[in-house]
Amino acid sequence: MANALNIAIAGLGTVGCGMVRLIQQQQAVLQERAGKAIEIVAVSARDANKARDIALPAHTVWETDAVALAEHEDVDLVVELIGGHEGVAKELVEKALAAGKSVVTANKALIAHHGAELAALAEANRAGLRFEAAVAGGIPIIDAIQHGVAANHFSRITGILNGTGNFILTTMQQTGREFDDVLAEAQALGYAEADPSFDVDGIDTAHKLAILTSLAYGTRPQLEHMPIEGIRSITASDIAYAQELNYRIKLLGITEPLGQGICQRVHPCLVHRDLPMARVRGAFNAVQIDGSDVGRVLLEGQGAGAGPTASAVVSDILQLAHGTHLPPLSIAAEKLNPFVSAPMDALVGRYYIRLSVQDAPGVLASITKIFAAESISVQSLIQHEHRGDSPADVIMTTHETQEAAMQCALGQLKQLEAVMEPPQMIRIYS
Amino acid sequence: MANALNIAIAGLGTVGCGMVRLIQQQQAVLQERAGKAIEIVAVSARDANKARDIALPAHTVWETDAVALAEHEDVDLVVELIGGHEGVAKELVEKALAAGKSVVTANKALIAHHGAELAALAEANRAGLRFEAAVAGGIPIIDAIQHGVAANHFSRITGILNGTGNFILTTMQQTGREFDDVLAEAQALGYAEADPSFDVDGIDTAHKLAILTSLAYGTRPQLEHMPIEGIRSITASDIAYAQELNYRIKLLGITEPLGQGICQRVHPCLVHRDLPMARVRGAFNAVQIDGSDVGRVLLEGQGAGAGPTASAVVSDILQLAHGTHLPPLSIAAEKLNPFVSAPMDALVGRYYIRLSVQDAPGVLASITKIFAAESISVQSLIQHEHRGDSPADVIMTTHETQEAAMQCALGQLKQLEAVMEPPQMIRIYS
Repeated sequence: MANALNIAIAGLGTVGCGMVRLIQQQQAVLQERAGKAIEIVAVSARDANKARDIALPAHTVWETDAVALAEHEDVDLVVELIGGHEGVAKELVEKALAAGKSVVTANKALIAHHGAELAALAEANRAGLRFEAAVAGGIPIIDAIQHGVAANHFSRITGILNGTGNFILTTMQQTGREFDDVLAEAQALGYAEADPSFDVDGIDTAHKLAILTSLAYGTRPQLEHMPIEGIRSITASDIAYAQELNYRIKLLGITEPLGQGICQRVHPCLVHRDLPMARVRGAFNAVQIDGSDVGRVLLEGQGAGAGPTASAVVSDILQLAHGTHLPPLSIAAEKLNPFVSAPMDALVGRYYIRLSVQDAPGVLASITKIFAAESISVQSLIQHEHRGDSPADVIMTTHETQEAAMQCALGQLKQLEAVMEPPQMIRIYS
Repeated sequence: MANALNIAIAGLGTVGCGMVRLIQQQQAVLQERAGKAIEIVAVSARDANKARDIALPAHTVWETDAVALAEHEDVDLVVELIGGHEGVAKELVEKALAAGKSVVTANKALIAHHGAELAALAEANRAGLRFEAAVAGGIPIIDAIQHGVAANHFSRITGILNGTGNFILTTMQQTGREFDDVLAEAQALGYAEADPSFDVDGIDTAHKLAILTSLAYGTRPQLEHMPIEGIRSITASDIAYAQELNYRIKLLGITEPLGQGICQRVHPCLVHRDLPMARVRGAFNAVQIDGSDVGRVLLEGQGAGAGPTASAVVSDILQLAHGTHLPPLSIAAEKLNPFVSAPMDALVGRYYIRLSVQDAPGVLASITKIFAAESISVQSLIQHEHRGDSPADVIMTTHETQEAAMQCALGQLKQLEAVMEPPQMIRIYS
């Protein structure tokens, strides 16, 4: 048995402390699986004196400057749990890799923004770089794409990648309440951040999706030009109508080859209740892989939290402990292809449309005329009886049509005098 | 880029041919991910002249004796797709490993019976040995336990590991038909073997479970003394009563630490319809991992077939192409613990009991008296109105109780004159 693997941990928040506990509690089994002991030799945290429910060995070195961890002679591997795609986190990872130390990070923003450069740096210095915790928490999705189903061409990868968003949508569905109301509760309970934008506007999902795209298609991770829609516009009525039509609404990240490029995008979808993704509830995450040979594989589990994230980080450490450093983005960084974005216009799919209309003669005719002119075929239409002068909801689902045609139709619908609010359009997943 | 990885394939049946096609169709992407070309240089098959829908290069060496593949100087890796835990398959794998060649196999029986010895042989000769295809087909479950969630202590691993069995149970549930009837149809359609014993009697599941146990708990794979029950005794009425109680019946392989040992067993279970395992339909497989830190992770996909199996085999080849040969059973073979079997007697769980009884005064009293004497608390009881003199079904579910108490009660129930058939007992998964 070789000597120990000495690690340094930058960031002792919930995940960092969870990780320390995991390493201490499972010391014996980790040593067997790693083939050597895992020793925490140095840590850094903004406030060294903060009360933490962990006991580090007395000889542990504390640094106030995280970047200093990269300079410790006896550190073999640095765990970066600071977050953010610039500043200290980036500097620490760069310096550690440049010094030939392996890095494990949970930082999706860092990998989504700088993954290709960091991979090249790791390879040039024969260091390892792993980031299982960056996507879908404890679900071993990166490992699956890199190893377990690596032999496949992927026709599509679809993920529910943000637990907060899925919790809000699930709660809306179960209670019939509106988005703002549920978000406020989630914030009060600590499930959602004071600034919920990363979660509910799809940015967090986009970071994770950019990483999956890179691994699946051998391209540089790319965030620019990714179409991103969040869930703020989803109303209780959308959820209810979807349910009436046997669908659930989920915020999905989807990546697939389209034409000469890759179409990666984040938006809410209607998912038929019989599909596995529809059943992913609460703060859970799931990723569905559609592979040329393996067919459909679904991985489901907790996408966040101290335990699942620490599980992913320490599992990465075990892999690197064996001393093999595969290319961090699966293929050698110099072989990564530039990302060629396929515009959504060319996508073909089905759509859900909700229109708030005046309850007056001829309104349905003018709406359906617009669809007909764009060769969009309506598959179902709901207009419930209602009383009073309030606008009526008209709900339509379409047969398969091109996104470009749908956008064109939406532009025209918006112009109709009888249409009282901007039309709601949600794509149907299939 | 290093030179090519030369592979030999023993067995050109459905999976072997699927594998050849996969390697040829995805040549470019496989080369990128492996860091070198994958070349098929030699094959063996019982009948070289059989019509196959594949085109091997003219220079491919054909051997009639598979074992001869282990002696080819230029072969780096041998793929064993022959099957069976003795004879040619075992000899080939042993000779290849002894010659320092890596081996990829889909042979669950071989690994379940001889995994520890083969792992030791691989390690001694610095060869790799991988068998992702041996458990749950294309689902990357071995990779997940070895790498993706390796940092966890596993409180339990549960699998639907046999597609044929799950297909039969699902069809019984959907159609209300009896086991024999559905099995005959599955055989006619080619979904089930002429001798269905491996699938429906739980043996196939047991092989796979023995492998998962070894990987999860660092023990030598062991089949001996594993309690194995199949699904032949499940009736259409059991399925219907289970459904009435909001359960599905699934054949599960379950492994978990219990007392001083490991309790691994195969038997049908009632699974509440809200649990993810209940929703695994038809020929699909699924594995649920309960980890100390990651929590509950579910992996679902196709458990058999040429495509999924070839996906697993070639993904294993990609991992070995990098030249790192981790211990095949996760920890060094010399460190594997002997398997200590925990008897099922000590298990605590809930139970479903179906009794066929005379419809006469005092019968329920005599039944419930037996349960009371064993301190078994009945949670629900169903006896539907029925007409005529035929026996009545009494269905009970229990609160948590020890398996030993339940077995004792079953023994006494069997003795009751009013109980017309041996009692049916199915464990409830929770």
